[in-house]
Amino acid sequence: MNRNNRDRGYKRLKKKVHLLLDPTDGGTFWDQVINSLIVCLILLNLAAVCLETVESLYQGYRSWFRNFELFSITIFSIEYLLRLWSCTCIRKYRHPLKGRLRYILSAGSLVDLAAILPFYLPLSGLDLRSLRVLRMIRFMRFFKLGRFLNASRVIRRVFASKKEELLISVLLVFTLIILAASAMYFVEHDTQPDKFSSIPETMWWSVATLTTVGYGDVYPITSIGKTLTACISILGIGMFALPAGILASGFSEEFKRKEARVAAACCPHCGMALYE
Amino acid sequence: MNRNNRDRGYKRLKKKVHLLLDPTDGGTFWDQVINSLIVCLILLNLAAVCLETVESLYQGYRSWFRNFELFSITIFSIEYLLRLWSCTCIRKYRHPLKGRLRYILSAGSLVDLAAILPFYLPLSGLDLRSLRVLRMIRFMRFFKLGRFLNASRVIRRVFASKKEELLISVLLVFTLIILAASAMYFVEHDTQPDKFSSIPETMWWSVATLTTVGYGDVYPITSIGKTLTACISILGIGMFALPAGILASGFSEEFKRKEARVAAACCPHCGMALYE
Amino acid sequence: MNRNNRDRGYKRLKKKVHLLLDPTDGGTFWDQVINSLIVCLILLNLAAVCLETVESLYQGYRSWFRNFELFSITIFSIEYLLRLWSCTCIRKYRHPLKGRLRYILSAGSLVDLAAILPFYLPLSGLDLRSLRVLRMIRFMRFFKLGRFLNASRVIRRVFASKKEELLISVLLVFTLIILAASAMYFVEHDTQPDKFSSIPETMWWSVATLTTVGYGDVYPITSIGKTLTACISILGIGMFALPAGILASGFSEEFKRKEARVAAACCPHCGMALYE
Amino acid sequence: MNRNNRDRGYKRLKKKVHLLLDPTDGGTFWDQVINSLIVCLILLNLAAVCLETVESLYQGYRSWFRNFELFSITIFSIEYLLRLWSCTCIRKYRHPLKGRLRYILSAGSLVDLAAILPFYLPLSGLDLRSLRVLRMIRFMRFFKLGRFLNASRVIRRVFASKKEELLISVLLVFTLIILAASAMYFVEHDTQPDKFSSIPETMWWSVATLTTVGYGDVYPITSIGKTLTACISILGIGMFALPAGILASGFSEEFKRKEARVAAACCPHCGMALYE
Repeated sequence: MNRNNRDRGYKRLKKKVHLLLDPTDGGTFWDQVINSLIVCLILLNLAAVCLETVESLYQGYRSWFRNFELFSITIFSIEYLLRLWSCTCIRKYRHPLKGRLRYILSAGSLVDLAAILPFYLPLSGLDLRSLRVLRMIRFMRFFKLGRFLNASRVIRRVFASKKEELLISVLLVFTLIILAASAMYFVEHDTQPDKFSSIPETMWWSVATLTTVGYGDVYPITSIGKTLTACISILGIGMFALPAGILASGFSEEFKRKEARVAAACCPHCGMALYE
Repeated sequence: MNRNNRDRGYKRLKKKVHLLLDPTDGGTFWDQVINSLIVCLILLNLAAVCLETVESLYQGYRSWFRNFELFSITIFSIEYLLRLWSCTCIRKYRHPLKGRLRYILSAGSLVDLAAILPFYLPLSGLDLRSLRVLRMIRFMRFFKLGRFLNASRVIRRVFASKKEELLISVLLVFTLIILAASAMYFVEHDTQPDKFSSIPETMWWSVATLTTVGYGDVYPITSIGKTLTACISILGIGMFALPAGILASGFSEEFKRKEARVAAACCPHCGMALYE
Repeated sequence: MNRNNRDRGYKRLKKKVHLLLDPTDGGTFWDQVINSLIVCLILLNLAAVCLETVESLYQGYRSWFRNFELFSITIFSIEYLLRLWSCTCIRKYRHPLKGRLRYILSAGSLVDLAAILPFYLPLSGLDLRSLRVLRMIRFMRFFKLGRFLNASRVIRRVFASKKEELLISVLLVFTLIILAASAMYFVEHDTQPDKFSSIPETMWWSVATLTTVGYGDVYPITSIGKTLTACISILGIGMFALPAGILASGFSEEFKRKEARVAAACCPHCGMALYE
Repeated sequence: MNRNNRDRGYKRLKKKVHLLLDPTDGGTFWDQVINSLIVCLILLNLAAVCLETVESLYQGYRSWFRNFELFSITIFSIEYLLRLWSCTCIRKYRHPLKGRLRYILSAGSLVDLAAILPFYLPLSGLDLRSLRVLRMIRFMRFFKLGRFLNASRVIRRVFASKKEELLISVLLVFTLIILAASAMYFVEHDTQPDKFSSIPETMWWSVATLTTVGYGDVYPITSIGKTLTACISILGIGMFALPAGILASGFSEEFKRKEARVAAACCPHCGMALYE
């Protein structure tokens, strides 16, 4: 009986730890505090990675950067171990050994591991740095926090429901980029052989033109090339209009669907909520 | 009785002054005239601040600028004092002393004070100038005027109802900017160490690319860098499409809500307005 | 009786001429042919005005340009006189003299006159040219033709119903341009006194940035300036999203209004059209 | 009987071949495999055409490019002949000779022929190359494949239902480009006679400005020119907003139409599908 109690307490603790680290929808106050702290640490790490590349700062505060690195690696290691320990709460990773192995190989967990592993291995400086950039992906965890939850879910749902239309517009953009580059290569190659040296090289121009970035390092100088560019950049307007239109209708539909759900959850006679 | 009458007349005057300076929805003719005149004066001040920075103009019309400054400071001071006197009409600032102190510390009032205070204090020329720029915020009062009232309220309501989705798109933009800058730094740093000298410096490039401004002062020259830029600038198209889609659905919903309000205010049998 | 007949025939002819030159909605075949021919002549004139500015072409085909000018002036003069003669068909310009004078002073007619008058007056070459550009406004008549009629009416109606929201977004753009220019002037003036010489001059930079044109002739070089530019150009994304969202909801509403009209014109029992 | 059977088998084979090469909506597994393979070959050809223009690659892998060319020409020739043989399955091309001639002259078939013909004719190298670019149009066949089918049909339907509004916005863009170019020519010609040398030349600037590409090779330097550019580039924002708004309402309407179809196909009592 005593042991049973201890076991139950152990399980409850594990569940609590799991919830603290990975809060679901309506997390309690402490879940959100812990998560906010970890997100802040990730953001500070992110800032440190960015600022370390500024030579003058790195020279001046070298020890500060190292200490912060040590501190955050410690926190992240503890976090990783606690996650690994408590993951068996989820049905999917229930098995003490196989479940944990499976958890280690899950996408989110691999990112977490990649963020701390380089420190423990005697790797070269450059590799370490580039792996640390991966940690920025954890920055996306920011979107998980409390109030953003609902809004980001709407955006994700809109993207999911329109993913085929959006994929087609991306394909259209690529088709246009290749067609524009090929046509421009034949038109401008003879006049500017250094800038329009090959079709893949010309694609740099067609990307900059169709996305209306227009750096201005490459541009046509022949009349035919300029006329062609005019047509292509006007088509480029459509490249912006298409996804905007698709997403606009996606958001409208999502809103209507939500309204329908609300209406279905209400008594048709008195308008009061039936459930939820 | 006599005193009571005088008191009432005093209160009525105060209320009239308050309404003249801060007209609500369906302001009368004179409210709008006074407000338009103040807005014009603000616009002229704005123009003066802008034109004063043109060296040749300032040298030629120095006295004109000084006189206009004197004139507008007088008007703005009178306006400020009248506002301060009449603010007790609002329930929130009812108390003669505490209410007025609270009013002074309100955002709008601080801006008004900031616009006139520098003149009365013996501050250095530069500080005065930069504070005068604050006056431009008062320019927003322009949107309060008559016919713009309804339209600007619709826009504000749409932004309010979609503020979380919009905030998330801004966060997405920032995430993309940082990720793009980090990736580009590792790719281009060795080839162009002066332009991609650090991640914060590279963020200048990623902002210019993702917002499709493309000044052309910094751009990649390696093949990998160009390919990466192509992907990033195509993602940049989405940066425009997302808020456009969000706002489009926001305006549609606002329109539907207005229609529902209109429908609810009509008799379902004859279609005539029931109230308002 | 004879005279009455002649009078009637004269009136009918006048009406026919009027309809030929200014076809309403469902114009007959010949109305559209005449109008298309005039539109073609306007387009050719437009092309001539453009091509005349190309020095080499003008030197080679000087006589051709002169003859075409003579020919088109003749046609336009005849058109103008016929319009003036037949305008009395419209109730507004019914009076033989006053009506015609009023017609001459109408906007469309003044443009027509401005297009032919310079030829008859011994004006200098330059004035003539710049006035001829005005003729391009007549190019807008193109939108009147047959099949475009319905679509362009939809677009005009959407713009009309949303004109206040659109005006506010334009005002917001201007406010942002001025605020951005003022802020940038104080930040960059000391470092680049030649490019950010005054606030009006800096507005050139803020326009290029907020509209994401980004010529690249002026850009900040200080860290604060670059950070400010980043914020401003991200706000610039909103400048595109706002009108896009407004217009999107405008088109949706227009579509719904049309559907409602169609539904109202149908028998609620059998769905057949009741009228129109 | 035997012959009849053989005939029927022959017809069935022809039909199968036809379906394999040109799968309709719900194609079977093998149709899609064959089509995917051909699309892959087209994509590889496309890549080869692009990479051939890279001098260094072409010198190194000349024989590889030639062999791949031989291989793909063989496959495309077989495909073309099989299509020509099996086209009589379609009612339109039923006649063995006239039908096939008609098929050869159809747009899709001419593109197919243009892709292989140059190889069989002793043409000059350049002509062959430019014709090979035409093959990229076959790349569009990609959009026919399985899962893209539905989404691309929605996009095409939206474009079809809004083609007049879109055409008008394109016309508006052209009108604006010409008007802006004419105005700018008169303003900037005297200051920058080399860059704003003629109206057609100035159109290059107005295209780059209105589409917000902004290469930065041509920009105004006079005050009037800059003011004009500001107005034009703000109008350029509308150029993006208009098609975005049109397409957004198009997608919403398409969604509503689909919903109406689904509703019409359901029993109004139980909600179950009646047909399809």
